[in-house]
Amino acid sequence: MGGLIDQLREFLDAHRVGVLATVADDGKPRQSVVYYAPDGDRLLISTLSERLKAKDAERTGWASLSVRGDEQPYPSATFSGPAEILTKDIGPLTAKIMQPIADAEEPPEAPSDEALAAIDRVILAITVERVSAVTHM
Amino acid sequence: MGGLIDQLREFLDAHRVGVLATVADDGKPRQSVVYYAPDGDRLLISTLSERLKAKDAERTGWASLSVRGDEQPYPSATFSGPAEILTKDIGPLTAKIMQPIADAEEPPEAPSDEALAAIDRVILAITVERVSAVTHM
Repeated sequence: MGGLIDQLREFLDAHRVGVLATVADDGKPRQSVVYYAPDGDRLLISTLSERLKAKDAERTGWASLSVRGDEQPYPSATFSGPAEILTKDIGPLTAKIMQPIADAEEPPEAPSDEALAAIDRVILAITVERVSAVTHM
Repeated sequence: MGGLIDQLREFLDAHRVGVLATVADDGKPRQSVVYYAPDGDRLLISTLSERLKAKDAERTGWASLSVRGDEQPYPSATFSGPAEILTKDIGPLTAKIMQPIADAEEPPEAPSDEALAAIDRVILAITVERVSAVTHM
């Protein structure tokens, strides 16, 4: 995401919800609303390994996230790139993603990888390579 | 969309912006924020025939639209189905889609098909066959 301009970084930092898209095994798009956390050049999403979005990301190695503001004219952009499923050392990252969901001022205590594995929770990480459909920025 | 429950229809009627997803010719998802208008079992989006989303929809014959509310916990759903590009008798439908963009109380006057063709404007219509990722409804 070397070329990602400061404005796009600020936009990602200012929002917490996006629409994840993957391609299903029937070749059709799959979309769902997710919380995300920016982490350097990556966008991190907490999900379950059994979820179809996680399976799509593993199988295709690619995902995209569309983020928009909540007021007209709805500033928005789509961030895409290689996607992978992370299961190691994901406690602090998971806590970072969960913070806005819990509406907490500080991240919750980081769970262990073992505790996350026990509830099937993984991180879907997109390394942003493309930014498209940038509107009203 | 025979099985679409009243709650989902009300949700679609209450919102005007969604994230359209198509599959690009490289097999990757393509997403962009669009205004839409419900029309019976269809979701209508005004776009340009030269736009990649329109070309994707024509080539693949399928698209999905993810719609979410603007406040936590962000109620949302994804509506998918066969997609086609309409160019005939699209004036009144185009006016209906444009109304919230113009923030007008009444739809603007319907343009003629000829006037729309002159500016390359078409309608991407999704006939909703699947509803997925329904959350916080």
